Amino acid sequence: MTGILSTIESPADLRKLSMPQLKQLAEEIRQRIIDVVGRNGGHLASNLGVVELTIALHYVFDFLHDRLLWDVGHQAYVHKLLTGRNKNFDELRKAGGPSGFPNIDESPYDLFNVGHAGTAIPTAVGMARAASIQKSDASVVALVGDASIVNGVAFEGLNQGGLLRRQLLVILNDNSMGIAPTQGGFAEHLAKFRVSPMYEDVKKTVKRFLPSVPVIGKPALGALDHLKEGIKAAVSPHQIFEQIGYKYVGPTDGHDIEHLIELLRVLKSTQHPVLLHVHTTKGRGAEYAVAEPCRFHSPNPFRVEGCRVEIQSSGRSWTAAFADALIEAAKNDPRVFGLTAAMPDGTGLNKFQKAFPDRYLDGGIAESSTVDIAAGMCKSGLRPICAIYSTFLQRAFDQVFQEVVLQGLPVIFCLDRAGFVGSDGAVHHGYLDISYLRCYQHMVLMAPADEPELNACLRLALKLDKPCAIRYPRDNVPTPLLAPGEATTPEFELGRSRILRKGGDATIVAYGVMCREALDAAELLANEGLEIGVVNARFAKPIDREMVSTALETGHPLVTVEDHTLAGGFGSAVLETAQELGLDTRAIVRLGMPVERFIPHGARSAQLAECGLDAAGIAESVQFAIRRTREAAGLRENVANRTGSNRLKDVART
Amino acid sequence: MTGILSTIESPADLRKLSMPQLKQLAEEIRQRIIDVVGRNGGHLASNLGVVELTIALHYVFDFLHDRLLWDVGHQAYVHKLLTGRNKNFDELRKAGGPSGFPNIDESPYDLFNVGHAGTAIPTAVGMARAASIQKSDASVVALVGDASIVNGVAFEGLNQGGLLRRQLLVILNDNSMGIAPTQGGFAEHLAKFRVSPMYEDVKKTVKRFLPSVPVIGKPALGALDHLKEGIKAAVSPHQIFEQIGYKYVGPTDGHDIEHLIELLRVLKSTQHPVLLHVHTTKGRGAEYAVAEPCRFHSPNPFRVEGCRVEIQSSGRSWTAAFADALIEAAKNDPRVFGLTAAMPDGTGLNKFQKAFPDRYLDGGIAESSTVDIAAGMCKSGLRPICAIYSTFLQRAFDQVFQEVVLQGLPVIFCLDRAGFVGSDGAVHHGYLDISYLRCYQHMVLMAPADEPELNACLRLALKLDKPCAIRYPRDNVPTPLLAPGEATTPEFELGRSRILRKGGDATIVAYGVMCREALDAAELLANEGLEIGVVNARFAKPIDREMVSTALETGHPLVTVEDHTLAGGFGSAVLETAQELGLDTRAIVRLGMPVERFIPHGARSAQLAECGLDAAGIAESVQFAIRRTREAAGLRENVANRTGSNRLKDVART
Repeated sequence: MTGILSTIESPADLRKLSMPQLKQLAEEIRQRIIDVVGRNGGHLASNLGVVELTIALHYVFDFLHDRLLWDVGHQAYVHKLLTGRNKNFDELRKAGGPSGFPNIDESPYDLFNVGHAGTAIPTAVGMARAASIQKSDASVVALVGDASIVNGVAFEGLNQGGLLRRQLLVILNDNSMGIAPTQGGFAEHLAKFRVSPMYEDVKKTVKRFLPSVPVIGKPALGALDHLKEGIKAAVSPHQIFEQIGYKYVGPTDGHDIEHLIELLRVLKSTQHPVLLHVHTTKGRGAEYAVAEPCRFHSPNPFRVEGCRVEIQSSGRSWTAAFADALIEAAKNDPRVFGLTAAMPDGTGLNKFQKAFPDRYLDGGIAESSTVDIAAGMCKSGLRPICAIYSTFLQRAFDQVFQEVVLQGLPVIFCLDRAGFVGSDGAVHHGYLDISYLRCYQHMVLMAPADEPELNACLRLALKLDKPCAIRYPRDNVPTPLLAPGEATTPEFELGRSRILRKGGDATIVAYGVMCREALDAAELLANEGLEIGVVNARFAKPIDREMVSTALETGHPLVTVEDHTLAGGFGSAVLETAQELGLDTRAIVRLGMPVERFIPHGARSAQLAECGLDAAGIAESVQFAIRRTREAAGLRENVANRTGSNRLKDVART
Repeated sequence: MTGILSTIESPADLRKLSMPQLKQLAEEIRQRIIDVVGRNGGHLASNLGVVELTIALHYVFDFLHDRLLWDVGHQAYVHKLLTGRNKNFDELRKAGGPSGFPNIDESPYDLFNVGHAGTAIPTAVGMARAASIQKSDASVVALVGDASIVNGVAFEGLNQGGLLRRQLLVILNDNSMGIAPTQGGFAEHLAKFRVSPMYEDVKKTVKRFLPSVPVIGKPALGALDHLKEGIKAAVSPHQIFEQIGYKYVGPTDGHDIEHLIELLRVLKSTQHPVLLHVHTTKGRGAEYAVAEPCRFHSPNPFRVEGCRVEIQSSGRSWTAAFADALIEAAKNDPRVFGLTAAMPDGTGLNKFQKAFPDRYLDGGIAESSTVDIAAGMCKSGLRPICAIYSTFLQRAFDQVFQEVVLQGLPVIFCLDRAGFVGSDGAVHHGYLDISYLRCYQHMVLMAPADEPELNACLRLALKLDKPCAIRYPRDNVPTPLLAPGEATTPEFELGRSRILRKGGDATIVAYGVMCREALDAAELLANEGLEIGVVNARFAKPIDREMVSTALETGHPLVTVEDHTLAGGFGSAVLETAQELGLDTRAIVRLGMPVERFIPHGARSAQLAECGLDAAGIAESVQFAIRRTREAAGLRENVANRTGSNRLKDVART
């Protein structure tokens, strides 16, 4: 914590530094990030790539007045270190510490909470347009990676931005990598520029023009045109940007602070949309991260010992279990095809790709089109399985509707990261998928409670002629759950739940991974002398109607448990079913994520506990429900005693 | 019905025709479309623009084997006329007649039900990829307009398609118009090509090369390269497509059948992704439609008398009411800014634009980025109002989440076309918005029952510091509803319902426009001696808890009514509230759209009636609920009589 970094309270302090000091600062920042991410886990390679660029941006712009929009936001650690968050950076991604993404509650320098890709440019366009209306001279900068810029909403924003008649700077941070290697024709096009050493020439060209460049307004624009002419001579410009209205500058070296500062000074006041193309190296400063940028994109805590880097391993994840389940399914069914949207590692499809390279597609950070591609394949007779995080499938909500549900196509969605995601926080929780998929016609929603169930889910999904979604969390699989008398996990039958434990004082109906917590809660309550039944719901759609009516007809509490919002989620589906069956729903208690709160980053277990979704919390709610139901029964009994048969009639007439 | 068209049962018949006959067929088709759309309403200008192109496509390809994907699908009438649907084309868009969009239930030539934009290319990519895996030589064609190709998912698909190493033909139908003039930098770029007469030269070039062109496989590709070289000499190619992996051909005249057939024959077997750029005239063949393509994009029935064309007017629409409400709001609040996504006419924002040209933005067919632009504006202190159809806001589901809800930004969404949309059918019903917006933190959901309420909604929304959505249908506003004793419409208060009619036998709680039907139902039941209360819910979120408990504590039925799916909709919100309050929900009946059915095109009134959501249907349900509740009360009374106080206890212990 000594050195220059510790003296930086805000970007103003940055501007007091000499060029050698700025370079030293860059190295200190790099080391600080490697240290903290090594301890806490987090986004490593992406942040190491933008150290110089971020320093240069804060050196040139005043982002309390100017506007800085981060795309995805997994590259904002440097920005955090420069805007007053070095002091608690050791707590990165831990409860109470800085979030791993820009966060409006942390700093006025963070304009948007982000995490999903492609949105920086359109929000920047909105802010630029607002600035025009408000007669503000604020400069607007959007920083976007080469993997994100081909996301649909980014392209839409770029297309609108090309119409602006004022300053707008879009910086394309091109490291030829997203979370995985960038996909698509555009990426191949960009790649051509990376293999040539031409951008060295651009630097020289810039140097030639800059001494004569005034710093503000229209003259700067003129200078830029000179600059561009010079660059054109050296490098073929990207007509793709020019054609939609941008002045294109680059490609240029994203690790040369001095050069970046010179360039940004010109671009700050260029009254025209500009695309600045910057080449950076993902993971720069940590050889292992440069060598394996996928593995070090967002690693668990790791330790560097000599030339060996060991990433903390943490048991068998749902992701690993899914990868094996998918491979198994593909072995048995030649129609199976695996798709991911830029998350081969995160979804386990990297393993699938190795096993079935011809039956694998990475659609890039483009969930919308990935779902459409899957629908096209399904229409042609394949059985596509889209492995997309719950939170990211939101981006394809309308494609799931039009291309899948409306056609009745049996596309299978495997939603990793469903429920609380732990240290990635509010923007990444998979807390909406049941609500937003449940309203779709003929959609089947399943959740496995353990690994054998995940396999069984997939087997059933492949037998059905309907669209299906299967959800599981960012967590490890539990030991397989078996009910007394069960030797193996029973197969999934459409709309049938599974009894895991019998007990007459209350029934917990748990969805997916909540079964483990529910069983533990039942065990806790057994110590209190209560016999609690546990049902593994297996389906959020269709709901097992017989199970609901059997449980409710006892008059004992039925407690639903889900790691999902209570607004329209699994519990609501049970409630709707009960009401449709004409059952008294007063014995129902729904446990899940609170409707109106955002749950911040921290450990997944702590997030569950905070919402009363751990075993202890569930046990407490069940106990309370039993007490309440007994009191109510007593009350009804008393009422019946006191007022006799007319009482109900009187109430009904009130 | 005489002439050539009546002899065309399938595209095979087309191939028997001579060139002069094909041209005559084109004129017959044009006249047929003008006649039927004049009578039934529908998409006029877009279909008149693609007559020759569609004939040429079906002439060259066999789309029972090859694949034809329509983007948006509002230009598929010609396709329908050529694929066996001429005989019932008079019933276009009427119940039982052909849908106004491609429809998989109508014909094997229709591969996808569509209506939302941008999806043809990615689904085509999926089908092309599947064909490769299946070793099929099927040619895949996606037809997309210049307004749709800049939609995010289209661009994403284009980007993926550029990687294919087989045939894929993307036809850019460039008429410089979407539903409204195309927006964005790319559109400006395309416009440069339209003003030049260069494509005439392309035709000559093609003619020069074609005689020597073999028709299949790699040789065709070689010929194409020659062709392209020739074209390059004449026109600057669109590097934007070349750079992402497409061979670019065009621009070419989309009304020259002969030329199109020659060109398509080459492209059919070109084993490489090709973008064919076709210039067409929207509305060609109907001068009034060419002159006013927005007005004649999708007109109501109209009559041509000499040089006057009169479009059937149909009373004051919700859209017109909204336009005036928005203008009023903008007069009173300088922060108000109006946004539409390519629907200035459909949302009424054309009128707003005239009043406040500087406070208006058309984001193009790009709902995702339009919402993000609005969020950027809102963050900068403006009060953006996004007028987007309910069904199209689905495209921005994730942007509403990340850029609006997660930031707590008070962006206002005005959802036109909420509920049944009548003759546009299943793909356009706004039947999901309550479910998919209700799960968002702090979101306020309102629906006005009449025009004064629409104004009141907007006034409240502008006072709140939360995101809001206001829904209203494709229909006319009813006469203002006033409860007995009310002189004017009371203002909206957050989470407070409004009593429209008192009555003790049951309470109908209606959302939005369903209030009118509910009042009529109450009137019908008054004739039967039943006193039915009607509550205008006003809010689907937050629900008026006091209203729910007051209504339920009577023990009489509470019947919720919404023109929205029953899965997670308004009724579910009421149900959740009742359950949270510990109330007996057995008296609740929820009326809405059935969860598992797709309701096809037809009249909106008929669609409501089909789902029991007209006054008669509601009355019937209410009556049934009253009978059932009374029987249940009688039953409970008997049970209490028969078994005394222990009965409940016994039940509770079962």
